[in-house]
Amino acid sequence: MASTSTSSSAENIARRAKTAFQEAQKRLPGGKEADAARARALEKIRAALEEAKDEIKQANEKDMEAANVLVQQGKLSTSLVSRLDLFSKPGKWASMLQGVSEVAALPTPLDVCTYAKRLADSDASRGALDLYRVTCPIGVLLCIFEARPEVIINIASLAIKSGNAAILKGGKESKMTAAVMSRVVAQALAQTELPADVIQTVETREDVADLLHQDRYIDLVIPRGSNELVRSIQREARMPVMGHADGLCLIYVHEDADTTAAVGSIVDAKIDYTAACNAVETLLLNEKLVEGKGKDAQLWPKLAEALLRKKVTLHCDQKSKAALEAAGLDRELASSIVDVKEEDYDTEFLDLDLAVKVVPGIDEAIDHINAHGSNHTDAIFTTSSSASDRFTRSLSSANVFVNCSTRFADGFRYGFGTEVGISTGRIHARGPVGLEGLVTYKYLAKAGKEGGVQAAGAFNGDGAREWSHRELEKGYPIF
Amino acid sequence: MASTSTSSSAENIARRAKTAFQEAQKRLPGGKEADAARARALEKIRAALEEAKDEIKQANEKDMEAANVLVQQGKLSTSLVSRLDLFSKPGKWASMLQGVSEVAALPTPLDVCTYAKRLADSDASRGALDLYRVTCPIGVLLCIFEARPEVIINIASLAIKSGNAAILKGGKESKMTAAVMSRVVAQALAQTELPADVIQTVETREDVADLLHQDRYIDLVIPRGSNELVRSIQREARMPVMGHADGLCLIYVHEDADTTAAVGSIVDAKIDYTAACNAVETLLLNEKLVEGKGKDAQLWPKLAEALLRKKVTLHCDQKSKAALEAAGLDRELASSIVDVKEEDYDTEFLDLDLAVKVVPGIDEAIDHINAHGSNHTDAIFTTSSSASDRFTRSLSSANVFVNCSTRFADGFRYGFGTEVGISTGRIHARGPVGLEGLVTYKYLAKAGKEGGVQAAGAFNGDGAREWSHRELEKGYPIF
Repeated sequence: MASTSTSSSAENIARRAKTAFQEAQKRLPGGKEADAARARALEKIRAALEEAKDEIKQANEKDMEAANVLVQQGKLSTSLVSRLDLFSKPGKWASMLQGVSEVAALPTPLDVCTYAKRLADSDASRGALDLYRVTCPIGVLLCIFEARPEVIINIASLAIKSGNAAILKGGKESKMTAAVMSRVVAQALAQTELPADVIQTVETREDVADLLHQDRYIDLVIPRGSNELVRSIQREARMPVMGHADGLCLIYVHEDADTTAAVGSIVDAKIDYTAACNAVETLLLNEKLVEGKGKDAQLWPKLAEALLRKKVTLHCDQKSKAALEAAGLDRELASSIVDVKEEDYDTEFLDLDLAVKVVPGIDEAIDHINAHGSNHTDAIFTTSSSASDRFTRSLSSANVFVNCSTRFADGFRYGFGTEVGISTGRIHARGPVGLEGLVTYKYLAKAGKEGGVQAAGAFNGDGAREWSHRELEKGYPIF
Repeated sequence: MASTSTSSSAENIARRAKTAFQEAQKRLPGGKEADAARARALEKIRAALEEAKDEIKQANEKDMEAANVLVQQGKLSTSLVSRLDLFSKPGKWASMLQGVSEVAALPTPLDVCTYAKRLADSDASRGALDLYRVTCPIGVLLCIFEARPEVIINIASLAIKSGNAAILKGGKESKMTAAVMSRVVAQALAQTELPADVIQTVETREDVADLLHQDRYIDLVIPRGSNELVRSIQREARMPVMGHADGLCLIYVHEDADTTAAVGSIVDAKIDYTAACNAVETLLLNEKLVEGKGKDAQLWPKLAEALLRKKVTLHCDQKSKAALEAAGLDRELASSIVDVKEEDYDTEFLDLDLAVKVVPGIDEAIDHINAHGSNHTDAIFTTSSSASDRFTRSLSSANVFVNCSTRFADGFRYGFGTEVGISTGRIHARGPVGLEGLVTYKYLAKAGKEGGVQAAGAFNGDGAREWSHRELEKGYPIF
């Protein structure tokens, strides 16, 4: 009984989302006017959140109290409590609100014409036939994420800006905060040109399991969170999933690498933010470097020392370890060098740990990355353009870097203004995904105003019309 | 036991495909040189097929003999036998070979730069940091299709041109032909710069079932065939599927439609090729048209008569039928007007049948299309730009047309040179999919030759570097 009722509740939520999406498509005129209407809706949401600050704060405190009890019981980490906390850290609340306005101000990803062709010219009796490809929303998004409550507002803003409807599910630890914020968003939306159901939130894990089967109504799932969460969603979802489970990023240092560039960037890639998906986890060293035959015989000892000084544990294979022993590192530093285990090369440490392996050359580095990487971000350090070209062309990772830190794989750093997440999938949007990843396109064909029969059959047989397939200026077609 | 061995055989095929893909990525230099190498491989395949013509013809005759036995037993349709036949229809074999060269000559979809930004300018001590987004192959494609044996060569050509590896599975009826052609392709590939395993074929249905679970190696499934085939693949596949199960296309005729345009195009949309996925199946009529209050009171009777003369059975609702009775159609013609059943609006007839429904206005037409359509191709007939704009903006179908036949939804007609298939999915490629749909992209970031540390941490805190995010000229980056 419970299962039936949950399932129909999931179907109901999903259907309402699709209806709201379709209703919004009908209500809004499109183009700049529609974007302005969406911006007005976002500002309404921001204002409503500001007004409800006290109530949200109280709810957030209740979530924190409950979380602190679990921390005392050893069931939750203190870092999770700090992610839950929306008010103690200076600027966090204000920056969440500011984010709403910033998304509103971004260029609209909609109604962009990316292909325009005159399929057939007009003739004495018939008008021309033109084809346009223009961007449009995807439809209904199901966004699943963990503790941080501000993500609800962030994702709601992105969904509204891109013309989609969204069903949001946050972590259970933030449920009081999420409940109040969701109500505030819904009430604000009810005063706008958009249907209130374009944003809905769900609270329980059971809802999500059922929603993942509503492929009739939900078009795309976007999970953000632990590997485990993402992997279970990828397994269960009957619709496409955009995101990444693993972030096993690798760096290969070629024999001719520049030491300054390599040391500065690789230390950054490891320690800038160890818990990030774009932090480096495995270092591949060209054999010549450990044999003292590289461009700089000291590159590896210098790099190792810099990493060790930053408290990184180096999980070394025999050759890389032997080279450090020969270099005579400070004994205390050297105590953080351990023997690598085969499984370390498949481990996303998300901590101050780095697996190290010596490879004969660039081809073996590419093979290792293909076998152990996660198609997220991989970098080469080299001063040779033939090596960097071979590396960047051979790998299919979403981000392939030359002489810089893997940490640059990020939507803000890429200049997208905002980031929906990072995708390691092979189709649709990949790498850091900005608003562009939340839109798709449709083809619009129109017969010219000169009138005349526009039948495909007219292009066959005797006296057939001819295809012209001439480029047209790209712009939203006015019919 | 059988299942285990099949499963490991599927895994083996999939793994070999991925290895071949990765090997090809390493072997070919990229850019024009790589495209030329792929073109050479395609011409080798063409020549090998020409040389093996007699052998292929013998195998094709055996397939036809076996199929004819099944036709006599009533287990197979004669139309399938004609699709199997590669040699009797004049030009079919030659056009298959010509297709290989045509694909080879298309502009390469690879190495196209679609985004280029200077993330940070150089300063006294550090080089610039640049970002490029360039197109690249998706990886391993699993292509599943039915009887026509020439599709094997067509899809193999597209996969090679786009730098992907492909696993092909044709219909069991064409298995002798497919086996010979596959061997010829493999032997030809063995004499090229490409690994022979970039194209593999599998023969049994069991292989496919297991391949659909090899998401570790296979990146995209492309099914072409019956609704049933596609739907079962969508259900089973653990990787993304690009294609369409249904092609329930609709046409809405607005009150102000031009009669000549509407009659010519709608007859074409129904009869040009009734078995096509882009043929119209449901006609929605604005109420004013059946009340004699439209721009042309005779539009509906004229349209109905034109359809009936082409032997179309009209499945009419009460209002549309009453209007025809009032118009006094020829009695024999009128005998092909039948009462519509509710399920007709959800039926892809693929035959000389058309469901007809009267709707109060454009909004109800949009609602009906959202509820019953398949997001394939939907058209409006109107002389008002506000109506066409409302229609094209509100619908999310892959193809939305104004005053022309739904039959134009086709890759060749769109000017793509070739067509991989038509997708009704919401993400990645949709509508008619050309070579562009077989590629994805990766981000390449490179630090300028001036050297200097490229650490993300350098952009934080005091004395931080600044982001510039300036547009660069789009071109494949030379590192």
